[in-house]
Amino acid sequence: MKHGGDLTDAIARYGGAPGSWLDLSTGINPRPWPIAHALPDSAWQRLPSRADTEALLDAARKAYSVPDGADIAAAGGTQALIQWLPYLAAPGPVAIVGPTYSEHAAAWRNAGHAVVAIDNLDACPDRAVHAVVVNPNNPDGRVTDRAVLTRLAERLKACGGWLVVDEAFADVDPAVSAVALCPDLPVLILRSFGKFYGLAGLRLGFAIGAPEIITRIAAALGPWPVSGPALLIGAAALGDQPWADRTRRALQQQACALDEVLVKAGFAIAGGTPLFRLARHPQALQLHAKLAKQQIWCRSFDWADDLLRFGLPSDAAGLDRLAAALRG
Amino acid sequence: MKHGGDLTDAIARYGGAPGSWLDLSTGINPRPWPIAHALPDSAWQRLPSRADTEALLDAARKAYSVPDGADIAAAGGTQALIQWLPYLAAPGPVAIVGPTYSEHAAAWRNAGHAVVAIDNLDACPDRAVHAVVVNPNNPDGRVTDRAVLTRLAERLKACGGWLVVDEAFADVDPAVSAVALCPDLPVLILRSFGKFYGLAGLRLGFAIGAPEIITRIAAALGPWPVSGPALLIGAAALGDQPWADRTRRALQQQACALDEVLVKAGFAIAGGTPLFRLARHPQALQLHAKLAKQQIWCRSFDWADDLLRFGLPSDAAGLDRLAAALRG
Repeated sequence: MKHGGDLTDAIARYGGAPGSWLDLSTGINPRPWPIAHALPDSAWQRLPSRADTEALLDAARKAYSVPDGADIAAAGGTQALIQWLPYLAAPGPVAIVGPTYSEHAAAWRNAGHAVVAIDNLDACPDRAVHAVVVNPNNPDGRVTDRAVLTRLAERLKACGGWLVVDEAFADVDPAVSAVALCPDLPVLILRSFGKFYGLAGLRLGFAIGAPEIITRIAAALGPWPVSGPALLIGAAALGDQPWADRTRRALQQQACALDEVLVKAGFAIAGGTPLFRLARHPQALQLHAKLAKQQIWCRSFDWADDLLRFGLPSDAAGLDRLAAALRG
Repeated sequence: MKHGGDLTDAIARYGGAPGSWLDLSTGINPRPWPIAHALPDSAWQRLPSRADTEALLDAARKAYSVPDGADIAAAGGTQALIQWLPYLAAPGPVAIVGPTYSEHAAAWRNAGHAVVAIDNLDACPDRAVHAVVVNPNNPDGRVTDRAVLTRLAERLKACGGWLVVDEAFADVDPAVSAVALCPDLPVLILRSFGKFYGLAGLRLGFAIGAPEIITRIAAALGPWPVSGPALLIGAAALGDQPWADRTRRALQQQACALDEVLVKAGFAIAGGTPLFRLARHPQALQLHAKLAKQQIWCRSFDWADDLLRFGLPSDAAGLDRLAAALRG
């Protein structure tokens, strides 16, 4: 499977209806920020206004601690930004720390850049003009040190390159963010709204970087890249600091409870973030099939036959169902 | 003003709150397709699935009469496609029939193409590798003949170019669509969901063309370019043929009623489609200011001081308000 979060394949192979499945194949918070049910009709009907956009960006600047001297742009999902960056970046090879989310390499390749797979940023070869790191990384949760990011960004600056830091899972530990580097270095931060806030269908993501880079990205995205509902919901959710604080603590607890179930079933925890756990088991692929037959969908990888990734169940009943299915 | 549909400027200059304004600055249907209030939570929370996307594309194929041998891709608004096309097209100059929607020229220029402004497609110079026509055109409603489109597309095919036909306002007269040309010629049709269906905030648009072109566009857009709510609402609305038929008739009547008010106020109707009227008056700019002072916002143009564009008021009260403001 190329991505998590799409039961189309699971249903085609194992049957059932979307509602009967327990989908643990994503890193999306299953307890989303609560949307007020009555969005104003204007959110659907009108073109989003500049005032709406500014309200969203103000909330995002605060939530992501964007420093003075850096700018921010909103897109219809981080994926839209991942697609554009290789077309806007200077020509030249890109080094990508992996294994990781596969769409980075796909997008740079599609735009004609050579892609160099590396194990860690310190291994970035001199010929690479750009580098991409997911931080914390998906699926293993590895965190790249700020000093390493800084050192590489300084090197890439000298050759007109970019260091793309995909912080899709940084909300659970904001201290990880490299956003402070943006004003002085060609560091481009990607922030995903949908994962931590549990609203992936909304399609909302952000790029943060030096103003000259963000201006180019905004020009490429063009007017109205974000839907009216996403502008309103995004602004309200990003401004809800108490929810974010509570949710960080709750996700930690939910991840611990999930670890306990996995360890009891013979897995070793190999990494992850509070939004997903990477677990090792010699019979991982057999367990993937066993769970699928009980309509529980987790994530397998074509580059490892002993690893599975588990997202969080939305409640205790879901966790019990997973535990029972692993035992059964 | 660069675009209609954004009261931010109007409010900054003339005061008032968004709700107090009568916004006639767009070509968006003010009587939208009625959204069922209870979208399933999953539309917001989950990543859109391939099954959801296929359901939308099936509905769009029928609504837009996409012929066998042509393919279709969905994006988060036609604007997102306008932004991408110049990056995916072969190098070389583009001829754009104008005056028209300004974002076509902006996007091609931004991607490094020379832009040649032309009056009509027959005036397309031989050095142009690509051409863009909005059909019917915005703001004057001009329709380019199918034979002219075919002839130019055949010429552009020989040099590896594209003919982009932006059919943002073709829903009101489906017979105008050049979609039948797609399988054999490098004709790329853009369809906008938000205007006819009155849901511009949703952000949904389509590209229709030969499979090899659509495959490249879909690869550039990447996964999940359309939000979950837009997939569901778009599929339902595009499948609602009775609403579309009724709405085409109603828009014609509303446009006639608007014309009557404008003509009584001394305007000559210079063009338009049933979704907007282009009206000429020697004191157009003074009338624009007079209406703005009464918090009615219509569209003016920097290339003509005797033309205004009026969208449809949402009801008889709005039309009466416009009539009174023009008299007063």
